[in-house]
Amino acid sequence: MSNASLPPVAAVILAAGKGTRMKSDLHKVLHPIAGRPMLLHLMDSFAALAPAATVVVVGDKREQVESALAGTGAVTVVQDPQLGTAHAALQAREALSGFGGMILVCFGDCPMLAADTVLRLCAALDAGARVAVLGFRPADAAAYGRIIADADGTVRKMVEYKDATAEERAVDLCNSGVIVARAPDMWRLLDAVGNDNAQGEYYLPDVATGAIAEGGRVVAIETGADEVAGINSRAELAAAEAQWQAFKREEAMAAGVSLKAPDTVWFSWDTEIGRDVTVEPNVFFGPGVRIADGATIRGFSHIEGAEIGAGCEVGPFARLRPGTVLDEKAKIGNFVETKKTHLGKGAKANHLTYLGDATVGAGANIGAGTITCNYDGYFKYRTEIGERAFIGSNSALVAPVRIGADAIVGAGSTVTRDVGDGELRLVRAEQSVKPGWADRFHDAMRKKKAAEQKS
Amino acid sequence: MSNASLPPVAAVILAAGKGTRMKSDLHKVLHPIAGRPMLLHLMDSFAALAPAATVVVVGDKREQVESALAGTGAVTVVQDPQLGTAHAALQAREALSGFGGMILVCFGDCPMLAADTVLRLCAALDAGARVAVLGFRPADAAAYGRIIADADGTVRKMVEYKDATAEERAVDLCNSGVIVARAPDMWRLLDAVGNDNAQGEYYLPDVATGAIAEGGRVVAIETGADEVAGINSRAELAAAEAQWQAFKREEAMAAGVSLKAPDTVWFSWDTEIGRDVTVEPNVFFGPGVRIADGATIRGFSHIEGAEIGAGCEVGPFARLRPGTVLDEKAKIGNFVETKKTHLGKGAKANHLTYLGDATVGAGANIGAGTITCNYDGYFKYRTEIGERAFIGSNSALVAPVRIGADAIVGAGSTVTRDVGDGELRLVRAEQSVKPGWADRFHDAMRKKKAAEQKS
Amino acid sequence: MSNASLPPVAAVILAAGKGTRMKSDLHKVLHPIAGRPMLLHLMDSFAALAPAATVVVVGDKREQVESALAGTGAVTVVQDPQLGTAHAALQAREALSGFGGMILVCFGDCPMLAADTVLRLCAALDAGARVAVLGFRPADAAAYGRIIADADGTVRKMVEYKDATAEERAVDLCNSGVIVARAPDMWRLLDAVGNDNAQGEYYLPDVATGAIAEGGRVVAIETGADEVAGINSRAELAAAEAQWQAFKREEAMAAGVSLKAPDTVWFSWDTEIGRDVTVEPNVFFGPGVRIADGATIRGFSHIEGAEIGAGCEVGPFARLRPGTVLDEKAKIGNFVETKKTHLGKGAKANHLTYLGDATVGAGANIGAGTITCNYDGYFKYRTEIGERAFIGSNSALVAPVRIGADAIVGAGSTVTRDVGDGELRLVRAEQSVKPGWADRFHDAMRKKKAAEQKS
Repeated sequence: MSNASLPPVAAVILAAGKGTRMKSDLHKVLHPIAGRPMLLHLMDSFAALAPAATVVVVGDKREQVESALAGTGAVTVVQDPQLGTAHAALQAREALSGFGGMILVCFGDCPMLAADTVLRLCAALDAGARVAVLGFRPADAAAYGRIIADADGTVRKMVEYKDATAEERAVDLCNSGVIVARAPDMWRLLDAVGNDNAQGEYYLPDVATGAIAEGGRVVAIETGADEVAGINSRAELAAAEAQWQAFKREEAMAAGVSLKAPDTVWFSWDTEIGRDVTVEPNVFFGPGVRIADGATIRGFSHIEGAEIGAGCEVGPFARLRPGTVLDEKAKIGNFVETKKTHLGKGAKANHLTYLGDATVGAGANIGAGTITCNYDGYFKYRTEIGERAFIGSNSALVAPVRIGADAIVGAGSTVTRDVGDGELRLVRAEQSVKPGWADRFHDAMRKKKAAEQKS
Repeated sequence: MSNASLPPVAAVILAAGKGTRMKSDLHKVLHPIAGRPMLLHLMDSFAALAPAATVVVVGDKREQVESALAGTGAVTVVQDPQLGTAHAALQAREALSGFGGMILVCFGDCPMLAADTVLRLCAALDAGARVAVLGFRPADAAAYGRIIADADGTVRKMVEYKDATAEERAVDLCNSGVIVARAPDMWRLLDAVGNDNAQGEYYLPDVATGAIAEGGRVVAIETGADEVAGINSRAELAAAEAQWQAFKREEAMAAGVSLKAPDTVWFSWDTEIGRDVTVEPNVFFGPGVRIADGATIRGFSHIEGAEIGAGCEVGPFARLRPGTVLDEKAKIGNFVETKKTHLGKGAKANHLTYLGDATVGAGANIGAGTITCNYDGYFKYRTEIGERAFIGSNSALVAPVRIGADAIVGAGSTVTRDVGDGELRLVRAEQSVKPGWADRFHDAMRKKKAAEQKS
Repeated sequence: MSNASLPPVAAVILAAGKGTRMKSDLHKVLHPIAGRPMLLHLMDSFAALAPAATVVVVGDKREQVESALAGTGAVTVVQDPQLGTAHAALQAREALSGFGGMILVCFGDCPMLAADTVLRLCAALDAGARVAVLGFRPADAAAYGRIIADADGTVRKMVEYKDATAEERAVDLCNSGVIVARAPDMWRLLDAVGNDNAQGEYYLPDVATGAIAEGGRVVAIETGADEVAGINSRAELAAAEAQWQAFKREEAMAAGVSLKAPDTVWFSWDTEIGRDVTVEPNVFFGPGVRIADGATIRGFSHIEGAEIGAGCEVGPFARLRPGTVLDEKAKIGNFVETKKTHLGKGAKANHLTYLGDATVGAGANIGAGTITCNYDGYFKYRTEIGERAFIGSNSALVAPVRIGADAIVGAGSTVTRDVGDGELRLVRAEQSVKPGWADRFHDAMRKKKAAEQKS
């Protein structure tokens, strides 16, 4: 479904709730799913609508929300005091003054809404309704408000659970709260909402009730309960994460990725992964990862912000940090960390190594225990290693430093000056030998130990 | 519920079974759940009763059990020969001679008993019964003994499954075996138990049967089946572990801990974890861990006996061993191991490092690949690193050694003598350069390799 | 059940399908379960029959399949064009010319077939049937072909779902496709199969239909649906892997292995693991691992091709690669990698170490950060370390090199020459000290940083 024929849409996202049950200093809608704040997941659902404006209604922690929204074009408005959801939605009026299209109101803590659902809702409004609401049929309808509608979706009544008759309670179509109307309708209907109820609050569903009272047509669109589940606690956040991950894993396998143990692989919202990629159990992909065809990611690897070329082998126990680029068939082995580092085609760093702020030429071999000393406590410096260079084990490369093509650095060297192409650089202190010394040491120590144990 | 008004209680824990299905040299009741022997978990359930005495009745492997009980005040007695559960309980009489309070008999391999259940059981006895028994209603009552009781819990009959009528088998209240009576009643009733049955054993439920025969009131208290499930195999042990972990994870999330993938985080029985702590997938907490608010524990971390301050960041791939203390905002990165080490506020050890028996001052920076050489094969020695000191990468600090405040150790140094405050210590051998050597080496080796492949 | 009394059996494995849904360049039947190609798992099911011949009928990627079959004695034949399953089976005739025993036809992508099921099927044929077919009763019979059979297993009709009457569709015994007949019967019946159907294909079940038409007895043997589930996608492959792992974990626990979190331990098809072995959460066993009694494998360990002796302790964060042998009570700690390395009794490598192509004597202690430099870019060389030797931390041992018994290598040494028994080898450069230098450096850098931030 596309929005080609729809009038412009503006989104109003209600996010003024305190989120007390999260027990967090972080605003509830900023808690992440798959490495992305839930608020931004929700906004992704609107992307197909190319919304003319997005207004997020917040209570406290406005700065946190604004900072997360930076660059999205969305704006925040504050609801203070907080007099109910209809009142919250009204706070967006000024920010949307002059906007005459459709206004969609939804909830920042219900981020799993599908793009297609949003389109269907707006299309239903466009097809002639005054208001469109989103319903769902949960396994247990419990105390949700009910939507009383005809078979064709025409809504006859919106009713809160506590006000519902037994017959109405038997209806299992529940109100998700998501609602859309044209701007003039929306503002007029919101203005007309009263607070004559037990809580003394202005309720958003009364917009639909008002439209019906006016004689307008209200339609209900249905979607799955999973899409409109609110996230009010960390357990619910974890459940949403699990739901997202399960979907992504299925998608990856269907596209030709081998996951030996799918439940143990975590993707981020933006992970891209090619065909015939094999991922062993227990791999974590943070944001910003792209993996080309035929790569192998072995177990216990933690990968963020990295581009992994075709046929590369990574792990087990690899940590790729942001700015890592591996060209085709490069290899990163166990207990190796890379950061802002580019490995050329077929280059290898197989064991116990830290490569930071480095360029490694094609075919180079970085020995076990190599460390790029890229930081002096104040500034960072780069290390450049030429093609086919061989860095001996346990070497420290003190940046800024350049190792030439085909050059060799002897094992155990601390290299502080550049090494030319095809040069050997050895840093070797004198080996002193003390025959019999170890035997005498062992004797003395055994005696000392025995004495200590006696005393 | 509290025990304020209850008479003193003694616990008799039956643990004489051979546990054959565990196929283990370790006594069955010592197999751990959440890092703690199941026997001690069971004893935790009595803590609220502050039991006057705890007697564990064992068969073989008495020393193993005694060693686990060290410091708890509990004692062991041996049942030999083993003539049934009533006979086992009687073995505790001598150890409890003179004790006149309530005696609770339970099973060492049923460790999930809740403290509140134990209190309810004792309170029921105290309210006027001669014997109180603990019942449960399993999904499949199978061959469990049945408790035939009135609606108010008054027990009319205890019946073994094989002796039960069809009508009695239809009753789903099963006997957990846990039982409580006042000491004089308990010993008299145990003495009266006979062994006139197929196995020729003395059965504990006959205590209740005897009390009814005497005209005493026997009451049944009910609890969930999960609480009284016996652990007879490693698979049942794993199931109990899973049950414990699920409970603990829910509890942590409810208290404001973010678990992206709850099923992959393992807590120990004594883990304490603050608000707004984030734990990535795949983290293992061994015993003795305390984490302050706002810390982040990244994936693939293994943490035991460590105190982690507010706002610290640990992992991924960190291993904190016992005696690790991280002050506020300290940072332990990947492939870093710490043991008996204290990091001051904001100190960092980010990569490939071993810190053992060390003190690191606030703000110090430990470079990649740093090793404290704390062991000479016989004794361990301490390393002290001053505030804001900078340890260059790939350094070995040979303890005992002291690095001063603001001091710098050059990369690749092996430091065997103290470094003063604000001093630079460089250990640097001569760099020998052989221009063209590497090229000649490559030529020679390629020829050798080619020759080998031909032959 | 044994095959002692059965006539010789040949297996024909159909593997000509394109496996499009796998989206893979690897032949579908070569995708691994528990580290072993599914085709070989299926062939394991025949091992008890000691099949006289095994013929795999392939479409494309024949070389991949042949390479996987190397050493098994099985042969491949190509089906081209592909005209249905009966046509595929016929392709094996030439390879089996002269073979007069029983021919079992089954499917390369149904690898979970139990050995016992295969034996029952062949025994049923041997007991007097002309054809035996394998049926199963899935939870949802869906569109599977049905087997219409008497209570004694005598098959009256094989019917495709689309041709079945409502009454036939109500039968829940479905056809797995696996079929067995004596060679002359099989070839004659296959020859007689026609392709007068919608697809114009020759269908294997028509072999049974033909036998019934001839007046021969056809019998159906039943097995569980899990055994005959086809693997057509990576998701189904992952499900088969999960099924295999669950079975193996139960088996390990029943044999006396403690798995704290069974779902996080991955075994390979050939893992052997002793009694009272403890495995912490998150351990991966690749092929070729054998673990003796009482060993402890701590979390986050990745182990392939390794032999682990009694009472050894491995991990956390250990990576044992092929050719690792640990004698009794040896210890491999965190961030340690071993390859083609033998550790003697009680030898230890506890931290941040790479041991490749090495022998370590009993009781030797390998310090943190030790690296064997076993590779010069062209050849690999061995390191030999004597009994009770002590390798100081952060040492590089440049192979080929031999460290004697009781010898000591000083911390931070790069050892290029042999060290004799009881000798001390120290490689120590001069320590230069610059009092006040660090303080002046800090001052200068702070100024530079401040200047940069201003500009």
